[in-house]
Amino acid sequence: MKKTMGGSLSERVAEQIINIIKEKGLKPGERLVNEYELANQLGVSRSTVRESIKSLESRNILEIRQGAGTFVSDKQGIPVDPLGLTFEEWDGKLALDLIEARLMLEPQIAEAAAIKATSEQINKIMDQCLKVESLINTNQEYREEDMKFHAYIAEASGNKIIEKLIPIINSSVSTNIDATHNELVKHTVKNHREIAEAIKRRDYIGARTAMVEHLHDNRMLIILNYNL
Amino acid sequence: MKKTMGGSLSERVAEQIINIIKEKGLKPGERLVNEYELANQLGVSRSTVRESIKSLESRNILEIRQGAGTFVSDKQGIPVDPLGLTFEEWDGKLALDLIEARLMLEPQIAEAAAIKATSEQINKIMDQCLKVESLINTNQEYREEDMKFHAYIAEASGNKIIEKLIPIINSSVSTNIDATHNELVKHTVKNHREIAEAIKRRDYIGARTAMVEHLHDNRMLIILNYNL
Repeated sequence: MKKTMGGSLSERVAEQIINIIKEKGLKPGERLVNEYELANQLGVSRSTVRESIKSLESRNILEIRQGAGTFVSDKQGIPVDPLGLTFEEWDGKLALDLIEARLMLEPQIAEAAAIKATSEQINKIMDQCLKVESLINTNQEYREEDMKFHAYIAEASGNKIIEKLIPIINSSVSTNIDATHNELVKHTVKNHREIAEAIKRRDYIGARTAMVEHLHDNRMLIILNYNL
Repeated sequence: MKKTMGGSLSERVAEQIINIIKEKGLKPGERLVNEYELANQLGVSRSTVRESIKSLESRNILEIRQGAGTFVSDKQGIPVDPLGLTFEEWDGKLALDLIEARLMLEPQIAEAAAIKATSEQINKIMDQCLKVESLINTNQEYREEDMKFHAYIAEASGNKIIEKLIPIINSSVSTNIDATHNELVKHTVKNHREIAEAIKRRDYIGARTAMVEHLHDNRMLIILNYNL
């Protein structure tokens, strides 16, 4: 999105490679032309191209597969640590901040999803709801699928910024609370169902308030776990 | 925050370098020990260390200054394109999505700031408000300082996730709308003042509703500019 006109030679070459990907409409998993051709095309040395490719790999834009070539990354340029939390110490306060940020956003997102979701998106949300439920009922790790449930609702809100934002917020920190054997997982099953079904019947108020209840329960779990 | 136990050798070495920075409590702008010492300490080759440092530079965690050494970056690990918008095409819909995401968050953030801001934070917000105002009154480019005004309010909300999130949202896309000569900049001056003064007198409802008005005006500007 942003254009860097300054920067080092390898940074500028990296921007040019991004433009090549855009112009050719290369999709995730598709292969980039080789180093040699890129160097010729851009009029720079192969070592500069190599350096630029490495930096695009660090930005999750490209993926280098040894012996096979360089490909557009499936990670679609979403960085390793988007919120820059590398140097933050994990504690109860950060867990609470995370859930409070979600409380600001997700009820409104569930409301928008109830208004705007396509029938395909509704099916996807319902399926994911059942998937999480069956993991919970069989005492299996469900957090990753739980995050997907929330990501699918964000997708259904029809807002591209929100669609990118929610997976970033929800995966940037993991609460380290194992709720698997906790009484509160029963609430998760109930709440997820209520959220999904409200979206399905276009009940935008119900979707919003079910999400508040769900995140409130999560918040209480954090308060109890960390003695806050 | 996240621990990568797998990954290539240089990825693992990068994680070890992050741990060294954390353990030594190195701050942005402080110097890292040299390549040679790092290679010795971690029992890997200098070329591996160099590769890891380059990847940490791409992640905005380190900064290599030619001839001077390697330093902890001022960018604090916040990536170039945190939302992964590199391949999104900019248009009116994306501008609208951005302002609608801000409408979900920032009124609640202004409310929290009115409740939680320290007196130092209030002074910082008031000063920044005046700075933006004087840029507007002299017809100068003010968008960067405007974003800082919003970032300082986010800081004052006392929520670390929100503090990281707002600058990311507000800087990830620039609306490309030059409002400098628009009648609506008068509203910006009025709205910013109302937000800042409401925070100052702990009027959390006023802070929230002034922020709604401000972002509503911005939203209308986008609708008019893009004929949406």
